[in-house]
Amino acid sequence: MNALVSPEGSLEILSNYEVSRLKDKSEGGLYRLFRQCALAVLNTGIETDDCKELMEAHADFDVRLVPQPRGLKLELVNAPGHAFVDGEMLRAMREHLFSVLRDIVYSHSLPNTIAGFRKDNPEDLTNQVFHILRNARVLEAGRQPDLVVCWGGHSISHEEYQYSKDVGHQLGLRALSICTGCGPGAMKGPMKGATIGHAKQRVKNGRYIGITEPGIIGAEAPNPIVNELVIMPDIEKRLEAFVRCGHGVIVFPGGVGTAEEILYLLGILLHPDNADLPFPVVFTGRRENAEYFEMIDKFIRNALGDEAASKYEIIIDDPVRVAQTMKQGMRDVETFRRAMQDAYYFNWMLKIDPVFQLPFEPNHDNMRALELHRDQPVHLIAANLRKAFSGIVAGNVKESGIRQIQAKGPFEIAGDPTLIKPLEAMLEQFVTQNRMKLPGSTAYRPSYRIVSGAA
Amino acid sequence: MNALVSPEGSLEILSNYEVSRLKDKSEGGLYRLFRQCALAVLNTGIETDDCKELMEAHADFDVRLVPQPRGLKLELVNAPGHAFVDGEMLRAMREHLFSVLRDIVYSHSLPNTIAGFRKDNPEDLTNQVFHILRNARVLEAGRQPDLVVCWGGHSISHEEYQYSKDVGHQLGLRALSICTGCGPGAMKGPMKGATIGHAKQRVKNGRYIGITEPGIIGAEAPNPIVNELVIMPDIEKRLEAFVRCGHGVIVFPGGVGTAEEILYLLGILLHPDNADLPFPVVFTGRRENAEYFEMIDKFIRNALGDEAASKYEIIIDDPVRVAQTMKQGMRDVETFRRAMQDAYYFNWMLKIDPVFQLPFEPNHDNMRALELHRDQPVHLIAANLRKAFSGIVAGNVKESGIRQIQAKGPFEIAGDPTLIKPLEAMLEQFVTQNRMKLPGSTAYRPSYRIVSGAA
Amino acid sequence: MNALVSPEGSLEILSNYEVSRLKDKSEGGLYRLFRQCALAVLNTGIETDDCKELMEAHADFDVRLVPQPRGLKLELVNAPGHAFVDGEMLRAMREHLFSVLRDIVYSHSLPNTIAGFRKDNPEDLTNQVFHILRNARVLEAGRQPDLVVCWGGHSISHEEYQYSKDVGHQLGLRALSICTGCGPGAMKGPMKGATIGHAKQRVKNGRYIGITEPGIIGAEAPNPIVNELVIMPDIEKRLEAFVRCGHGVIVFPGGVGTAEEILYLLGILLHPDNADLPFPVVFTGRRENAEYFEMIDKFIRNALGDEAASKYEIIIDDPVRVAQTMKQGMRDVETFRRAMQDAYYFNWMLKIDPVFQLPFEPNHDNMRALELHRDQPVHLIAANLRKAFSGIVAGNVKESGIRQIQAKGPFEIAGDPTLIKPLEAMLEQFVTQNRMKLPGSTAYRPSYRIVSGAA
Amino acid sequence: MNALVSPEGSLEILSNYEVSRLKDKSEGGLYRLFRQCALAVLNTGIETDDCKELMEAHADFDVRLVPQPRGLKLELVNAPGHAFVDGEMLRAMREHLFSVLRDIVYSHSLPNTIAGFRKDNPEDLTNQVFHILRNARVLEAGRQPDLVVCWGGHSISHEEYQYSKDVGHQLGLRALSICTGCGPGAMKGPMKGATIGHAKQRVKNGRYIGITEPGIIGAEAPNPIVNELVIMPDIEKRLEAFVRCGHGVIVFPGGVGTAEEILYLLGILLHPDNADLPFPVVFTGRRENAEYFEMIDKFIRNALGDEAASKYEIIIDDPVRVAQTMKQGMRDVETFRRAMQDAYYFNWMLKIDPVFQLPFEPNHDNMRALELHRDQPVHLIAANLRKAFSGIVAGNVKESGIRQIQAKGPFEIAGDPTLIKPLEAMLEQFVTQNRMKLPGSTAYRPSYRIVSGAA
Repeated sequence: MNALVSPEGSLEILSNYEVSRLKDKSEGGLYRLFRQCALAVLNTGIETDDCKELMEAHADFDVRLVPQPRGLKLELVNAPGHAFVDGEMLRAMREHLFSVLRDIVYSHSLPNTIAGFRKDNPEDLTNQVFHILRNARVLEAGRQPDLVVCWGGHSISHEEYQYSKDVGHQLGLRALSICTGCGPGAMKGPMKGATIGHAKQRVKNGRYIGITEPGIIGAEAPNPIVNELVIMPDIEKRLEAFVRCGHGVIVFPGGVGTAEEILYLLGILLHPDNADLPFPVVFTGRRENAEYFEMIDKFIRNALGDEAASKYEIIIDDPVRVAQTMKQGMRDVETFRRAMQDAYYFNWMLKIDPVFQLPFEPNHDNMRALELHRDQPVHLIAANLRKAFSGIVAGNVKESGIRQIQAKGPFEIAGDPTLIKPLEAMLEQFVTQNRMKLPGSTAYRPSYRIVSGAA
Repeated sequence: MNALVSPEGSLEILSNYEVSRLKDKSEGGLYRLFRQCALAVLNTGIETDDCKELMEAHADFDVRLVPQPRGLKLELVNAPGHAFVDGEMLRAMREHLFSVLRDIVYSHSLPNTIAGFRKDNPEDLTNQVFHILRNARVLEAGRQPDLVVCWGGHSISHEEYQYSKDVGHQLGLRALSICTGCGPGAMKGPMKGATIGHAKQRVKNGRYIGITEPGIIGAEAPNPIVNELVIMPDIEKRLEAFVRCGHGVIVFPGGVGTAEEILYLLGILLHPDNADLPFPVVFTGRRENAEYFEMIDKFIRNALGDEAASKYEIIIDDPVRVAQTMKQGMRDVETFRRAMQDAYYFNWMLKIDPVFQLPFEPNHDNMRALELHRDQPVHLIAANLRKAFSGIVAGNVKESGIRQIQAKGPFEIAGDPTLIKPLEAMLEQFVTQNRMKLPGSTAYRPSYRIVSGAA
Repeated sequence: MNALVSPEGSLEILSNYEVSRLKDKSEGGLYRLFRQCALAVLNTGIETDDCKELMEAHADFDVRLVPQPRGLKLELVNAPGHAFVDGEMLRAMREHLFSVLRDIVYSHSLPNTIAGFRKDNPEDLTNQVFHILRNARVLEAGRQPDLVVCWGGHSISHEEYQYSKDVGHQLGLRALSICTGCGPGAMKGPMKGATIGHAKQRVKNGRYIGITEPGIIGAEAPNPIVNELVIMPDIEKRLEAFVRCGHGVIVFPGGVGTAEEILYLLGILLHPDNADLPFPVVFTGRRENAEYFEMIDKFIRNALGDEAASKYEIIIDDPVRVAQTMKQGMRDVETFRRAMQDAYYFNWMLKIDPVFQLPFEPNHDNMRALELHRDQPVHLIAANLRKAFSGIVAGNVKESGIRQIQAKGPFEIAGDPTLIKPLEAMLEQFVTQNRMKLPGSTAYRPSYRIVSGAA
Repeated sequence: MNALVSPEGSLEILSNYEVSRLKDKSEGGLYRLFRQCALAVLNTGIETDDCKELMEAHADFDVRLVPQPRGLKLELVNAPGHAFVDGEMLRAMREHLFSVLRDIVYSHSLPNTIAGFRKDNPEDLTNQVFHILRNARVLEAGRQPDLVVCWGGHSISHEEYQYSKDVGHQLGLRALSICTGCGPGAMKGPMKGATIGHAKQRVKNGRYIGITEPGIIGAEAPNPIVNELVIMPDIEKRLEAFVRCGHGVIVFPGGVGTAEEILYLLGILLHPDNADLPFPVVFTGRRENAEYFEMIDKFIRNALGDEAASKYEIIIDDPVRVAQTMKQGMRDVETFRRAMQDAYYFNWMLKIDPVFQLPFEPNHDNMRALELHRDQPVHLIAANLRKAFSGIVAGNVKESGIRQIQAKGPFEIAGDPTLIKPLEAMLEQFVTQNRMKLPGSTAYRPSYRIVSGAA
């Protein structure tokens, strides 16, 4: 379909300078990135795991900027039809398109704004995350802590999906807001449930924040409930955004992406500086998922020790208690931040080790070189495991990852057998449980290979 | 539970005169009625068919008015707990309580405001409906026609419920609003679906209007999505409210209540004065409901003739087409009203014969005396059949109806066999399909008896 | 000018019943009253004292109701041009027209709504005032006490006007709202000043309430700053509205109308039941007005005794202190009402003797019969003096008053010389100071005559 | 006075990086600049010409940033008392303080955000103006052209001030918004008048934009009506901001600052590329100012030729016609921009020669070196005369200008006698008419000297 789209309700206006950067199809220009993310956004509702395929299937798609007296319009050529109702684009999709525009323009001019910005300076990276979120109007100055991050698989069963809706409903009844990775499955269910909960409580300013990044957006197109979409420049900043602006985390069953998120979170919470920081974390699922969480729990205790397990609570089949636990957690966060005079809207005090901030590039060399042994502090073990999962995700769904594996075969992961054997076992479980790929797609071809030798 | 409830977001303030009427427990006072409706509202989520039982089960419930510097509060004693989340009353319920208050006070002072008001004057009755709706702020002057009335059973299957949600979702995606009888089942599904559809289209002012009356509210407690609740004084004014402020009607499968509504609507649309008035009506359900609608269709053609059948369209298993049909219908209504300079918010031009306006009191004599023969214009046949169904509803769920039947046995219905035989057959079908009673309640004991003799 | 006016921003929609009453040109119909008030509203900015003249000058003016799909429009024929800017009617005037419509329709159907309403029952009258104000949306449930009633002459000097603006500015800087009789002079200045004060404090919901009645509106057309206009049915209900919804009173220099208001207020505050009720009252003016207030003070002390003088404070040439006194007074009112659980938005506890509520009809007999002697409680002396002033106002500016005096000569006022001699002296002062008539109009022809004989 | 000020209604939240820059008292830090502008803002209402004096008088003033859970607070130490009402800071002042903060932080990180930004590149400079205005939320995407820039003296007579209010009132009645240099006199009058006009038309989103820069803010403290305050980095960007976001200009009588603005504007409008661009300009004043505008007109015709005079219209003593002319001008601008698909909110098409963009530093050498001869295109003559006036303004009121003149005597201005003789005469007129200094300050000591020799 072709369409001329105006940014109803959006505040985005661009300078000539920005317009020309977005139109620039050369190497340094932003056109290619913008087109790719725009296409991903429009692909909402179509579940796919394969970004590369998506791009190839819509080779004739184009998006053009059309300046107008009242602001900017976007002209879409050969757009996928799912985002339209009776020929008119869904308002949610229009907003998402302009969010993409906003964040791509901003992120790519940002590093320069921080005078003397250094790419390896943790403080500068955190400030960058702050600036992107502020520009996206995610940081609301006057608001009480209320933002629950929900993690979990995009490929889950109907019953798991229904459970995530029930949890969302209970969160919504308690006026809590939802933040997810913005795709389908466990990223959509809690938002849908919360929408109904908010309607019953007449919460008009309920937030359904989706935080994504260009590499993943194709596989996890933002669902239309998302009313604040943010495109972070890379996966590390996306993860940092979750833990800096969220006030608590709920983990539903998922696959490698979820495992990456869990290890990232525990790695940070295990840092000694964060010992006293309240940060509510709940793992939850249906009765049938109890086993799943036992496996995760065992994996964590083995790899990171029992202290790591003290950072979360497992609640089975009890949406009301999950929501009450989060509500109480929000109160604790509020009390703590008020005592510390720290902002409600951004967790400045959370210490994040640079190893979690610096982008990890998944390729065969880097994957092979991961330090998966026990001669390091626990939070670094978590960091390296996180990278391992991150690499597998890339190999599964990201365009560049898929290309590399097509060319050179699966990534090889090596290390201390007491770490990688359980890893291998867990990955196999994910495969068996259909958590690596959306059901209906062809059988999962592993993007990794566990090799015996040490790192 | 006990609670002190403030009317957050409500605009209701009362004069001393009104407060004392509401507190008045004597015959002419409003206390008894207010208490009964308040209890019904708080009983949301608990499905019951039996208003009498509800009242008896909460004999110790009390509601008191507590004047306050900033307005009025309500003190609730021994309230049912379903309307509370972690000890706090759901905002929706607080609003509903104050809507009940508003409408009871207003309706009972209203007839006097119309100078020279006569209870049997059709114009006066219509003005009364208008005044009550206006006072409830249901009539929005600036708004385009967008209000779809959804009728159907409160006791429906899970799949039928899901289908009504799907239809609501498609209506919501087209920015249409929903008006129902405000109970569970087909009265809740479309609202829930529309809530998600509205969220995707960022419709902030979506309307979920529930119109009820004191006799029925106990059996069909308003669901919490309802964001505009209106208590009309009796069933006839409730029905008139539907057709005067709604712009189209969708009928889902239901029982005798739904049948009453269908006959009311067709009886009016068949009036010669209304021949050219656009009024979109769709009967819809799942593939499995096709047979059900064939039965309804046949009953109507037999009783009222084929012209009656031209007033509605039957659409099976196609929520998108239902929504598109309604959307187009709204446009036709708008064009017509603009041409006629008639209000969008109130269908003044619709001719309603007084026989549909004057309250029908269901008792043994009146039921026995119904004129169910063919020696009358078609719209009067519809009117009498409507009364027959209305009486059965009363016998099923209304407090006074149940009492009469307990005392004297089922209502007797007599008339022309070509009319009452099909009626009997259809009623039996309703019983078989569990549409007379909520599942789980005891087996249905008919509140009627078809007798052979002529009227 | 001719114009078709839509009620932008107004909420008014009428039933067919109401439309036909407003169109009804017969005796019982409302057309004549509506046309007269509409004309008065449109005459804003043109200062005149003579309602009769106004009506005669616009004999060809007409106003018609035009029902529309989105509500009601008004068609104006031969409207005075002052209310238009470049051919378009000032938005303020459009609102005022629809306020007139709203209040006339409502007031004239109201008495019937109070079951068993008796015209001489004080409680019923007070409830009637409440209902009219509520219908006009003047009673805001959630709002803190902030409403300062400003009384004073419509015919004042430029310097007096400037001073009333300065006081208004200081009130606005303290986020207080203004309520006046809604005409020019001391009724406009405080609103204009407060508008600027509110702008500086970013007060977006500042209230500029004008309360008038059909007899006076012609001489005191609402100024366009008035953003809430109320037409009470008669002068007594207008006065009751001031003291029930206002939280304090400031009196600027004025003539007989102002004197009427002062005596009404003191008569009420002197009632023993009101002894402990906080009600801040300030008389204020420029240095040059000091003498004027000495005269008023002396008159009050002579007629009503020193206790009466304890009810007000005289502040000369100090707008900041006036505003601070009112601000403090609001706090006292708030504290008191909270302690008493009495509404902020309506002073239910204020005791008003029926003698102040029952309409006084000014004619030669009633004026001659006023009981102006000392053999009665002080608050009744105030009541009778109030009536005397009320009669003179009617003779000066009201249509029916002017007619009577043209026919039979001035009203005669008789009574105890210790009361009526000071009255005569004060009235002469008003004449000398040009407070009886707008400057520029012909010399003042007294509408009264003080006669020596006792009442 | 000391105070802790929260940014009620402001959206400003800062990153740690920005907070530390604002706290930085070293050379490159922003503390000094922030403190100076904050002090200027708080000095509202106190009319002074001498920024240097202002700073010295409040040597003990300090402003500190206090991070808070809900955002940032400012602690003020020894703040001037004018901005407080009963000990609480005026809301307008609180907003202005946070506007200062916002713009200083942003402007000083901005040039880096434009990749490859060059300080002498006109396009980059224009983009910079755009970005600062956008960040200040001055560019409203959806709004029709409605912004009238009002220029004129800060030191004007009471009658001239009243006239500027009358013009503002007529603009406000036509729903136009006001943009000025945000100080007293002709910069305040139109805003005050428009506030009343907007109140009468119920315009809730009326804009009172003040655009200033750090050098001038001390002498022209923003008046509290200003509801959007912008601090541009220098005078040239301030002037560009006026002509890019305003849609028309009204010039009231003024002194050298006003003359600078006139020459800037005409210099731009005379550029051949702008020949067809609609840009309404009106010079207006009272009957008594007719002579003043004749002088200006003659000066312009002599220096720039008659074509320059075709760019403006002189309207004497007719606020209604001024407002109607502007209203029509807005329509022309709208039509043109729509035809050209150019933004309403930013005049991208206006060609501004770099000579008007590059900062002119007023010092003795630069002033002496001005090219005031006729051997250049007309718009460059305008540019150089603009600089001459700019230097005199700096010598009159800016801190660095005053210091230089105290040290080295008045600036010398030389050039073609046919240009500088009329210049000298006009400057003398400004002195005589008290337009160089606020009345009440000591006699004007010229900051310039016209010397006979050529440049």
